[in-house]
Amino acid sequence: MFTYSRLLVHTVLGGLRAHCVRTRSSTLTLSQGRLWVNPQTRLWSCSRTQTPNTGPSSLSFRTHTCGELRSDHVGEKVTLCGWVQYLRQDLFIILRDFSGLTQILIPQEESPNDLKAVLCDLTVESVIMVRGTVTRRPAGQENKNMLTGEIEVLAENVEIFNVSKKLPFEIKDFVKKSESLRMQHRYLDLRSSQMQKNMRLRSELVMKMREYLCNVHGFVDVETPTLFKRTPGGAKEFIVPSREPGRFYSLPQSPQQFKQLLMVAGIDRYFQMARCYRDEGSKPDRQPEFTQVDIEMSFVDQSGIMSLVEGLLQYSWPAEKGPIQVPFQTMTYEEAMRGYGVDKPDTRFNMKLIDLSEVFSSTEIEFLRSALAQPGGSVQAICVPSGAKLFTAKDLEELKQGARTHFCPQELSLVLVRADGSLKSPLKKLLSVSATDDLLQTTGAKPGDLVLMAAGSLHTRPLLGNLRLQCAELLNSRGVTLRDPSVFHFLWVVDFPLFLPKDDEPEQLESAHHPFTAPLPEDTPLLYTEPHKVRGQHYDLVLNGCEIGGGSIRIHKASEQLHVLKNILREDPSLLSHLLEALDSGAPPHGGIALGLDRLVSIMVGALSIRDVIAFPKSFRGHDLMSQAPDFVSEEDLNCYHISVKWPPDKSTRW
Amino acid sequence: MFTYSRLLVHTVLGGLRAHCVRTRSSTLTLSQGRLWVNPQTRLWSCSRTQTPNTGPSSLSFRTHTCGELRSDHVGEKVTLCGWVQYLRQDLFIILRDFSGLTQILIPQEESPNDLKAVLCDLTVESVIMVRGTVTRRPAGQENKNMLTGEIEVLAENVEIFNVSKKLPFEIKDFVKKSESLRMQHRYLDLRSSQMQKNMRLRSELVMKMREYLCNVHGFVDVETPTLFKRTPGGAKEFIVPSREPGRFYSLPQSPQQFKQLLMVAGIDRYFQMARCYRDEGSKPDRQPEFTQVDIEMSFVDQSGIMSLVEGLLQYSWPAEKGPIQVPFQTMTYEEAMRGYGVDKPDTRFNMKLIDLSEVFSSTEIEFLRSALAQPGGSVQAICVPSGAKLFTAKDLEELKQGARTHFCPQELSLVLVRADGSLKSPLKKLLSVSATDDLLQTTGAKPGDLVLMAAGSLHTRPLLGNLRLQCAELLNSRGVTLRDPSVFHFLWVVDFPLFLPKDDEPEQLESAHHPFTAPLPEDTPLLYTEPHKVRGQHYDLVLNGCEIGGGSIRIHKASEQLHVLKNILREDPSLLSHLLEALDSGAPPHGGIALGLDRLVSIMVGALSIRDVIAFPKSFRGHDLMSQAPDFVSEEDLNCYHISVKWPPDKSTRW
Repeated sequence: MFTYSRLLVHTVLGGLRAHCVRTRSSTLTLSQGRLWVNPQTRLWSCSRTQTPNTGPSSLSFRTHTCGELRSDHVGEKVTLCGWVQYLRQDLFIILRDFSGLTQILIPQEESPNDLKAVLCDLTVESVIMVRGTVTRRPAGQENKNMLTGEIEVLAENVEIFNVSKKLPFEIKDFVKKSESLRMQHRYLDLRSSQMQKNMRLRSELVMKMREYLCNVHGFVDVETPTLFKRTPGGAKEFIVPSREPGRFYSLPQSPQQFKQLLMVAGIDRYFQMARCYRDEGSKPDRQPEFTQVDIEMSFVDQSGIMSLVEGLLQYSWPAEKGPIQVPFQTMTYEEAMRGYGVDKPDTRFNMKLIDLSEVFSSTEIEFLRSALAQPGGSVQAICVPSGAKLFTAKDLEELKQGARTHFCPQELSLVLVRADGSLKSPLKKLLSVSATDDLLQTTGAKPGDLVLMAAGSLHTRPLLGNLRLQCAELLNSRGVTLRDPSVFHFLWVVDFPLFLPKDDEPEQLESAHHPFTAPLPEDTPLLYTEPHKVRGQHYDLVLNGCEIGGGSIRIHKASEQLHVLKNILREDPSLLSHLLEALDSGAPPHGGIALGLDRLVSIMVGALSIRDVIAFPKSFRGHDLMSQAPDFVSEEDLNCYHISVKWPPDKSTRW
Repeated sequence: MFTYSRLLVHTVLGGLRAHCVRTRSSTLTLSQGRLWVNPQTRLWSCSRTQTPNTGPSSLSFRTHTCGELRSDHVGEKVTLCGWVQYLRQDLFIILRDFSGLTQILIPQEESPNDLKAVLCDLTVESVIMVRGTVTRRPAGQENKNMLTGEIEVLAENVEIFNVSKKLPFEIKDFVKKSESLRMQHRYLDLRSSQMQKNMRLRSELVMKMREYLCNVHGFVDVETPTLFKRTPGGAKEFIVPSREPGRFYSLPQSPQQFKQLLMVAGIDRYFQMARCYRDEGSKPDRQPEFTQVDIEMSFVDQSGIMSLVEGLLQYSWPAEKGPIQVPFQTMTYEEAMRGYGVDKPDTRFNMKLIDLSEVFSSTEIEFLRSALAQPGGSVQAICVPSGAKLFTAKDLEELKQGARTHFCPQELSLVLVRADGSLKSPLKKLLSVSATDDLLQTTGAKPGDLVLMAAGSLHTRPLLGNLRLQCAELLNSRGVTLRDPSVFHFLWVVDFPLFLPKDDEPEQLESAHHPFTAPLPEDTPLLYTEPHKVRGQHYDLVLNGCEIGGGSIRIHKASEQLHVLKNILREDPSLLSHLLEALDSGAPPHGGIALGLDRLVSIMVGALSIRDVIAFPKSFRGHDLMSQAPDFVSEEDLNCYHISVKWPPDKSTRW
């Protein structure tokens, strides 16, 4: 590797040394005449005229970042550090750091330090420090696409810190690379301008959130343990063996118990950027560890928490993304299911579910009749504008097939409205003229539109909610923009049911969210009579159709909590005895919320995956592709934890 | 449990409702005439005149905190929420929240809401909300020891949120309780004024640190994974089984690799309040998870990092603790060992080690002669002022015994200087007059002082360093204050050896800190010739004799890193291949530091243990005494991780 420093150290000496030498205990250093010269201090960098005390170049070898210089700086001596992005015709080096690019002009005349040869020998992605003078680019050579495009820096000295070998992929935004290659070399992938932007935006967002919570509203940042007791039935909790035989810690899925205990402890207002863990095996776009903005307050109601979160997002929202309006729209769970077939509706576009039960109330069509006769049966539809015009026969077949696969036994009925207003549909001949009119009027279908219809009970709305999103995607791919990608639509969904029937045991109830959610006050008496009818003081925050947060006012009375655990959920309350005891020891009314930070940032920056806003994410199989974690551990290393691996029979020779 | 809300809801109605009802989607709520009344909003709390938009009472039921009211507030209607601290003579309630105490005056006349009876029935630590008017206390009844001691609040309404049962201990600062009882009921323990103070000071400190790093110096807060690959030989790393047979994640002891990779990735300035894990079994005052302020910078030298940390601490230092002076004192490792016998000297007091080798260079005393004849042999002493006067025979015997036990085969020699200047020592008859004079002069021992002396090679200085601290403690217990408890003395220790001989294999070297530390530039050539002589660009930060941080400039060249790993440390470099590859891909010069946050805060607040600055710490055996973690996990739950417990023979029936 080429080192160039010796040469430079010898060229610049003199009175500068004193500035470089940090005041230290003198006995060993100055008194012995030893000069404490750090090769990385490079004496000449000390002679810079403008050492910033603050900002991104403080305490650094450089005087400026590579994205900073403008025509105002012309004539200044500057020092830049960065990566060689391009070498052009032995004339220019484009130097890059996190902030941008600067063009370095290579002096063409011979020089004692042989600058031209040294610079022209560089490989891309090598790391150098350049000292030189800011000059205005010759007229006509300005680059308007470059922030520093009016200037260039005439190199006078250079130091080569690190010569890069040939890399597995180029650090250019236009170079496409597979995600697994990116992950294997994440330290290169993070050099891309998009990843740099994502990581910095995330950091700034979190900083603003903290300012808002701590400095504006007096929250206390409290760290809670991640080595904790396993939640009963916590199938998604990673376990951590301890040195006591058979005893394990567990990595909690959220600090739920701790945040409530902190309220009982009188902390009053708690928040934490909390690392959470969830072992879900392989799931696309999930991460085994993730971060939530975790908030809990005492002496507050649902509206207080909602206002806090609105203020939080408004305060911390990046200026470049445009302002967001508060208060956010609020919708009940019932409204969401009725209008969108889902509890996290994408409200950026319409195409809502239409109830056609009235239209078909006296129909002769057999499958509609029988659907309507079911308890909770209905006929639902969505009208896809221009769907008949833009969707191909293959599209329609795929929509039908998807419905069959995912929402069996739901059957999808299609009604295409031709350009001339006539219908194309298997139902056509079964529909009377008035029913047809009624259908068109209720759905608002116009020539060229497509009506998707389904009949049944439980799954009808979710099916159509799903189709609504699929059709929006399809329309998008055909050039119809239903959703402005620069728009952020926040929505509160409230009044969720507190309990839902268990899938496998419908007469038994389970918590819709978690057992600590308080009922709506007006529903509280129902807890003791008809618990399935109780709505909870739970609120979900939805952004562009993604759930980015959820929270609730909690039960703060031990007797009510005990009733929910024991009589409704039929769980063993002794497993939560510490919480029940806490609620009997002077618990304030309290509530909170948790926002999924990774998801929020990914929507903010328009990333396709949360992996693009996490510095070192795991693959969808939960692997770190750079280091190959998880990895094998020797039997010997397992001994102190009193565990051994049970190898599956066919893999017993693997280790 | 007594609920009081229905009564109140009925007493205050009218035009206030609209203010309470949060703007929501109107279809389900207002259009149906349903009023969205939350019992915790308590209608009357909406009529408060001064709802703060910011600060600790924003968005809350209360208008003020319990520590806030002064005589300026007299005449105001206020709402307070808190815990019943005391009930006095059916006349007063002292209400507490995190901010302090307020005296509530119980109205003595009969009232429709039977206020007196309700209030007098309360148990201590019950949680209530009180509305009333601030009044000036009658002359002579002010309490100067109470921030709110000039006023009291005449109660007009009260709501009881939670009635506390009898608690296992009282929440009074003067009530002593065992640590295990405190830990079992941590949610009660945290209510104490000291713990509230500690948690809040910690939060504020961290907030200021973030402001300094992000806002002043442009650092990027990056979260790094805690599920990672096991470090070869990482005996102190917890492991986490994955769902793939035999494969384990590991909880890293620090984000060392990630922070360096982030520099290679061009992040430029990284920091993180990083959760770290260390499985050390049972060690007093260690925690299996702890937090470090983790910092890394590119294009910086040692002095840059040191200045950054000084600025960081100065900026974030709590005002109440008085300002701290920068730059901090700097001392080399050699100086520290020579003067204090330890690499983290407590520089708040003198009593330094004195080298007596010269004094005894031609001594006849056999054990001194033989010690001086050893390679590196010396005679060392400390002079304990007033030690001869204040220490008992038992003290002296314990000092000698301790030396024997911990630093065998070191033998401690005592020289007591009597009030009349004569010596009392087993050595007395062996010392010539001139040697005695020389000894007294070199040690500066005066009548009443005690000289502790040891001779030998390796362990002599550490022994005396240890005795120095013991003697300071002893003097302290006898009323001689050597160390002002309000003083904070920061110290940098630098120029550590880069490698040390392995304890069990002295011809083999191991890293003094870690294998990524760069050598001092002037020592770099020695890497290839005499590596044991190389000093590293490592710096430790010491506060009042405790190491609170350490860092280094890192090796940023793959060839140098490979040489250290392979040729000096004789480790398998393939285990760090991703790091070596990164250093060959354009790595900038970089360095950083990690500060132990828990330790720093504990010294700041004068806590005896780091457990007092952690919300939910583990016991010294690593247990959570509240929830009983770690706990047993069923065989069934272990199946998906392909592990089973190897029960020790005698405990096989335990499960």
